[in-house]
Amino acid sequence: MRPVHGGNLAWAAEKTGCPPDAILDFSASISPLGPPQSAIAAIQANLGNLSYYPDPNYRELRAALSQSHQLPPEWILPGNGSAELLTLAGWDLAKLAVTALVTPAFGDYWRCLKAFNAKVLECPLDLEVREKDSLLPLASCLLPLASDKCGLLLNNPHNPTGKLFSQEAILPYLEKFALVVLDEAFMDFLPPDQDQSLIPLVQKYPNLVILRSLTKFYSLPGLRLGYALAHPDRLQRWQQWRDPWPVNALAAAAAAAVVQDKEFQQQTWNWLPPTKLQLFQGLELVGFQPWQSAANFLLVESEQPSSQLQQQLLQDHQILIRDCLSFPELGDRYFRVAVRLKEENERLVQALSTIINAN
Amino acid sequence: MRPVHGGNLAWAAEKTGCPPDAILDFSASISPLGPPQSAIAAIQANLGNLSYYPDPNYRELRAALSQSHQLPPEWILPGNGSAELLTLAGWDLAKLAVTALVTPAFGDYWRCLKAFNAKVLECPLDLEVREKDSLLPLASCLLPLASDKCGLLLNNPHNPTGKLFSQEAILPYLEKFALVVLDEAFMDFLPPDQDQSLIPLVQKYPNLVILRSLTKFYSLPGLRLGYALAHPDRLQRWQQWRDPWPVNALAAAAAAAVVQDKEFQQQTWNWLPPTKLQLFQGLELVGFQPWQSAANFLLVESEQPSSQLQQQLLQDHQILIRDCLSFPELGDRYFRVAVRLKEENERLVQALSTIINAN
Repeated sequence: MRPVHGGNLAWAAEKTGCPPDAILDFSASISPLGPPQSAIAAIQANLGNLSYYPDPNYRELRAALSQSHQLPPEWILPGNGSAELLTLAGWDLAKLAVTALVTPAFGDYWRCLKAFNAKVLECPLDLEVREKDSLLPLASCLLPLASDKCGLLLNNPHNPTGKLFSQEAILPYLEKFALVVLDEAFMDFLPPDQDQSLIPLVQKYPNLVILRSLTKFYSLPGLRLGYALAHPDRLQRWQQWRDPWPVNALAAAAAAAVVQDKEFQQQTWNWLPPTKLQLFQGLELVGFQPWQSAANFLLVESEQPSSQLQQQLLQDHQILIRDCLSFPELGDRYFRVAVRLKEENERLVQALSTIINAN
Repeated sequence: MRPVHGGNLAWAAEKTGCPPDAILDFSASISPLGPPQSAIAAIQANLGNLSYYPDPNYRELRAALSQSHQLPPEWILPGNGSAELLTLAGWDLAKLAVTALVTPAFGDYWRCLKAFNAKVLECPLDLEVREKDSLLPLASCLLPLASDKCGLLLNNPHNPTGKLFSQEAILPYLEKFALVVLDEAFMDFLPPDQDQSLIPLVQKYPNLVILRSLTKFYSLPGLRLGYALAHPDRLQRWQQWRDPWPVNALAAAAAAAVVQDKEFQQQTWNWLPPTKLQLFQGLELVGFQPWQSAANFLLVESEQPSSQLQQQLLQDHQILIRDCLSFPELGDRYFRVAVRLKEENERLVQALSTIINAN
């Protein structure tokens, strides 16, 4: 069975017959710089405390996030990866008449909406529009929809295109939709002076839920770490639904450490722009059409079927890319790759070049 | 706010003004022998893999559990603590006309049923009946209820009384209820020749869900580790609802290791019976009435209000016990204590004796 998420190395290893750690993974949009040493140190320091339940209020972690976002702790709810919080958001969305979903959409959005039988209205992005500045107004179909009975589920930067919506582009929807769930899983890849996060507006809009992930930026998908920012009434309600200790104690300790790790953050902001540009240009030179991206991945248009490229890269080069078959709007014309270290990106471009020239 | 679960050391530390690790915790029913060295070693060995997503199928962990329970892997679903799986079970129960809940009931059962607006019918245990052999037929009110529209949620051994129901006592309910959710969180404290687990019957009853925890026996509440055993169709449905990677990779690795740790298991079975007896007799000597218990905790009847005892133990002795105020059927007449190491149990009995004699 073909995986519907990136990073399924167990699947790739089974297909190639080589061990999972022999595969160079471009399919999961995870930073290659981490995990930060501060995360590992925090885990080590807490190995002696596994016999204790986590603090159900996660006070230490909330305090660290509170300081990092300049928001009182009661507006922040840690979760077992942002995927757990997405489930709770799906529950709230399903109570509305309809949820507008900007497509192509991250596969897990369908999961959380279907689980609660939410009615979904697909709002396709115009895939032909690719401005250089990567700021794109939301699909024009959305605004007429907005009403006090409609929800909106959106990620910014958008996955899988990498498009960044400006704060101003989203504001009108906040005024009109009953509930806006904004997944900012990749927003921290933008340095503070460029980010378009709506966190500064959370206290102004009780109908706004922001989801953040620590998985991608800090390279910790094994730990499961995310958080929601929203009105305390909503978060307290969620807290009553779910289990009392959703975040593992080691994950909570690592999270509190990494959000304070300014050095790692700066290192990431220094690494990404030139490395992304290098990968972008490399792919262009081989004949692909990558999209401008605000995140740490590139969506790439290809004349060759991406599922075929994926298979050849895996078999001949032990490289895994993300096909886009699970996004029906994209299908076999596109693939997605994470930005990795310079030498790794060069290995990918070289491998793609070999395949293209041989075909 | 008084905690509704044991083990809230952050709350206790705040009340006493001493650090959490200075408190001797009898309130959480966690084994004092662990965590096993095998768990720590497995975590250490996996610290280098945090940049990878967990295998969404948790193949390695499922294989270990499969071997341990002699059940095919597709009948087993790992979860982020059994509390996460309880939420999913609550979802299924809420679809039925009514769920019978044996009371006093673990507080989290109310949470998972209320979350989905399940209709609950309380079936009280007869608190006056305390046979020495601790085998008690289920409350007689239950059997007339059973129908193909009713669910049953029960733990065995029962928490907070420690009562053990025999396989034979539960079988009639399996034949009649539409869904039986059996929480066996404390069953592994009984050695294989004494346990009354219904796991051997899971393949015979598609209406049976068994929840198990690795938290208590292996002393790993910080990790969040549990699993469900049920028909593959049900588990696949649950899998589609919830997030794709609910179990942290370190927790999954530790779990796979501990379920194979025969030495730790035998050590626990050797430790518990004489130590529990010693605590039981110590409490009796001071004038309390403990219940016979099949688990690693004792429910204790007290003439002095248990909330008052709790406060005095905490302030004067840095000892935390579990009051029973959150169980309305028990209230201030009862408290619950975990069985800990011999010297720790003696410290508890000594402290209680001091308080009783001073009052």
